[in-house]
Amino acid sequence: MTGKLDQLKTHLAEYIDLNHAVGLLSWDQQAYMPPGGTEDRGNQIATLSHLAHQAITSADLGRLLDDLLPEAAQMDPDSDEAALIRVADRFYRKETRIPTDWVSRFSTASTLAFDAWAKAKRESNFATFRPFLEEVIRLRQEYASFFAPYGHIYDPFLDDFEPGLKTSEVQAIFAVLRSEQVELIKAISQGPQPDATFLSQPFSEAAQRDFGIEITRKLGYDWTRGRLDVTSHPFTSSFGQGDVRITTRFDPNYLPGALFGIIHETGHALYDQGHAPAYRHTLLSNGASMAVHESQSRMYENLVGRSRAFWKFFYPRLQTYFPGQLGSVSLETFYRAINKVIPSLIRVEADEATYNLHIMLRMELEIGLMEGSLAVKDLPQAWNSHMQDSLGLIPTDDARGVLQDVHWSYGYIGYFPTYALGNLVSAQLWEKILEEIPDLPQQFEMGEFGALLAWLRKNVHQYGAKYQPQVLTERVTGSKIDPTPYLRYLKSKYGELYGL
Amino acid sequence: MTGKLDQLKTHLAEYIDLNHAVGLLSWDQQAYMPPGGTEDRGNQIATLSHLAHQAITSADLGRLLDDLLPEAAQMDPDSDEAALIRVADRFYRKETRIPTDWVSRFSTASTLAFDAWAKAKRESNFATFRPFLEEVIRLRQEYASFFAPYGHIYDPFLDDFEPGLKTSEVQAIFAVLRSEQVELIKAISQGPQPDATFLSQPFSEAAQRDFGIEITRKLGYDWTRGRLDVTSHPFTSSFGQGDVRITTRFDPNYLPGALFGIIHETGHALYDQGHAPAYRHTLLSNGASMAVHESQSRMYENLVGRSRAFWKFFYPRLQTYFPGQLGSVSLETFYRAINKVIPSLIRVEADEATYNLHIMLRMELEIGLMEGSLAVKDLPQAWNSHMQDSLGLIPTDDARGVLQDVHWSYGYIGYFPTYALGNLVSAQLWEKILEEIPDLPQQFEMGEFGALLAWLRKNVHQYGAKYQPQVLTERVTGSKIDPTPYLRYLKSKYGELYGL
Repeated sequence: MTGKLDQLKTHLAEYIDLNHAVGLLSWDQQAYMPPGGTEDRGNQIATLSHLAHQAITSADLGRLLDDLLPEAAQMDPDSDEAALIRVADRFYRKETRIPTDWVSRFSTASTLAFDAWAKAKRESNFATFRPFLEEVIRLRQEYASFFAPYGHIYDPFLDDFEPGLKTSEVQAIFAVLRSEQVELIKAISQGPQPDATFLSQPFSEAAQRDFGIEITRKLGYDWTRGRLDVTSHPFTSSFGQGDVRITTRFDPNYLPGALFGIIHETGHALYDQGHAPAYRHTLLSNGASMAVHESQSRMYENLVGRSRAFWKFFYPRLQTYFPGQLGSVSLETFYRAINKVIPSLIRVEADEATYNLHIMLRMELEIGLMEGSLAVKDLPQAWNSHMQDSLGLIPTDDARGVLQDVHWSYGYIGYFPTYALGNLVSAQLWEKILEEIPDLPQQFEMGEFGALLAWLRKNVHQYGAKYQPQVLTERVTGSKIDPTPYLRYLKSKYGELYGL
Repeated sequence: MTGKLDQLKTHLAEYIDLNHAVGLLSWDQQAYMPPGGTEDRGNQIATLSHLAHQAITSADLGRLLDDLLPEAAQMDPDSDEAALIRVADRFYRKETRIPTDWVSRFSTASTLAFDAWAKAKRESNFATFRPFLEEVIRLRQEYASFFAPYGHIYDPFLDDFEPGLKTSEVQAIFAVLRSEQVELIKAISQGPQPDATFLSQPFSEAAQRDFGIEITRKLGYDWTRGRLDVTSHPFTSSFGQGDVRITTRFDPNYLPGALFGIIHETGHALYDQGHAPAYRHTLLSNGASMAVHESQSRMYENLVGRSRAFWKFFYPRLQTYFPGQLGSVSLETFYRAINKVIPSLIRVEADEATYNLHIMLRMELEIGLMEGSLAVKDLPQAWNSHMQDSLGLIPTDDARGVLQDVHWSYGYIGYFPTYALGNLVSAQLWEKILEEIPDLPQQFEMGEFGALLAWLRKNVHQYGAKYQPQVLTERVTGSKIDPTPYLRYLKSKYGELYGL
């Protein structure tokens, strides 16, 4: 048994190393690669991805799993060994269902679609993107067929990012969320709005960076196992537990972008730095799912980083970085400005109260596209009418409407819901944390964030990919993913802020 | 035929992509990786190197070459197709001779030896390094046996870096070189020495960097296909023709280090950026050998970068960067300072007139170690007595003697000679260039370096790895590697400088 398990680990190590190498090739492409490197880098990533696919679908691995599965069934299902076999088996079974020729057709189609999307967005012209998106959607429908039979055609996509989660579960959650969030936003929009204009003025990039780094240190980001670089789209990238990097972009005329961006990525990075050391160099040294990952980043960004307690400590520090801009702005004015609610057309600019509505719109459209009840040609109109229903806004053009996100051009389907689910999980965890550490806000006011991190390490981070997202959420909070805590949080926070 | 050749290219593309990925993993390790990444990075590099070895020794590749070789014999031997098959066959034949278990034993031994060397050097204690070096030398003797029969036990090592070159050829070259260089240095050491103290004072790193970049641009380094970063050991790294990066290190209290270091690496980079575009993503998009590579870097560093004509243009520019330090230092004083000759213990600090003597000493010792006529235990004494013979100096301790270079701890044997051979080739090329572009120095004085680069592109760079070093040198200069032009250059330059 031990022999076979060691063989499994050795076999998977090759897959892991290849994926980490692809991660570095991609990180470098976004952070440092000169423009001339594009073509060769594409070749390198394609070759290594292909080798990784071979490693995870090899007949040797299949035989090894066939030998190990019966024995794993006898093991304590809660043991790391059983979890490793389970997760490896899941990867193997999923990847072997996907024909190699589909992978290559999809890769070509999505490369073309990405270029077409970038051009269409620049020109705000959906028509030029349409045929490329149609091909991507057709290929994605074919993808679903590899996983038939399924309860819902959207299930295989959701499962790519949220192992084990079903479409019906998400739909039930979102149904509750939608009506309550729409009502809340309506109430907020009727009150007076705080002033946030002072957030838009020159803020030196170097000072933004230094202050951002100061925050990451306080939150517990381990700089001996990470770094911060600049990319046009911020992300966190992990090449093993010992090397978890974050990126950001600085807007020299707007403070919140990089500030909350860095806190958000720090949340992701703390998770990846916190998997059990024993999981090093195994498939368990990963997040449980995208939603659980997002629960960490959004908890740090919003529940921690947009809280009054956090700024009671950090605002005087921020003022020393920017005395001219913020010296005469009070803490309360600053706090209200960074929590201003305003329905907007753009998802990535959305505040906590409206964000989930952007997500629900996208999931509904994705389901329509996969089911075939919505044609790509009708997508812009469907988008606009959903926007009007949920946020009362109609996009002025496609660039600020249906073309705003890159995801569909990459062929990502099932990814968007994870953002909203992450919000929900963050609030569920938060209620639990406050139950166990009631003086957490007082700790933040003193600049102490260690108890929070220790709790997350103990209850979430260390388990890595051992548990599927619903299992993990239930283990930690006592219930599966549930919209109620998030709604309670929104109503309490914004009720106070907007005097509802 | 075309079908098989395409198959060959496709097969080799995997090998190339893996090697480029290893290159990036290693570049990043030295430039940006946080310390926590060491263990995982080691795994990633080992896995990808192993896969690259598999790709270049695979039975499929062997069969393909067996099919292609008879046909290649019918082709124009000067065609790119014949060269590609020849080079691929060379790689395949060499790599398949090396048993996998030797690779793994050698990898372990050299990893241990490197750590032991670093410690021994810090403590200047050869004794602690000795057993590890003995193991490395033993494994290297075993390595030679895989290539038996050979004319000389040192041939397989030389061939790793200088395809086709024989030990006897190098020994004949060095025999001429040694006596003449020793005599020249004796003559120089009897004259008065120029003042170079003003080179050792504070020079801001940012200004050193900006000036260095200005030089690289003038020399023709393409910044859309490269970048400059800081590492503790400077190097050039190529991940394809479109991404050729250089690194340097800045000493804030000594100007020449980074200055000539950047020019040196620019020489390497111009070569790698200049291979024929048609060679992209093939084995021909490489240097012909280490010596030919070094001929480019040392030509730019010394024949260009330490010439009076170069500084007639650049010295006024340099003075604007450092008016306080150099405002009152004349061009002639500066020129003499950067060309000061002084026998020293350390190879990497050696000037043009003494450098080759450091190399010859090492090659003689390596041959003794491989032949078994020199035991590792006797190495420090042999080192010291050779130093006294050739440079009249005895190391004060092993750290500044036999322990100074990293190469042997890595198990590199046969590498050192390439540095000196590069010097020789650079002077051979230079005589040819001056024949064809007699006003080159006048061009430099006007800041024009385009004609030089165009000549190198046409005669050297474009051919990449198509020709072996002796073939290339003979094609371009009319003779194989020859010490005479370098000796002529030294005597003329230092004769004038030291009034000999």
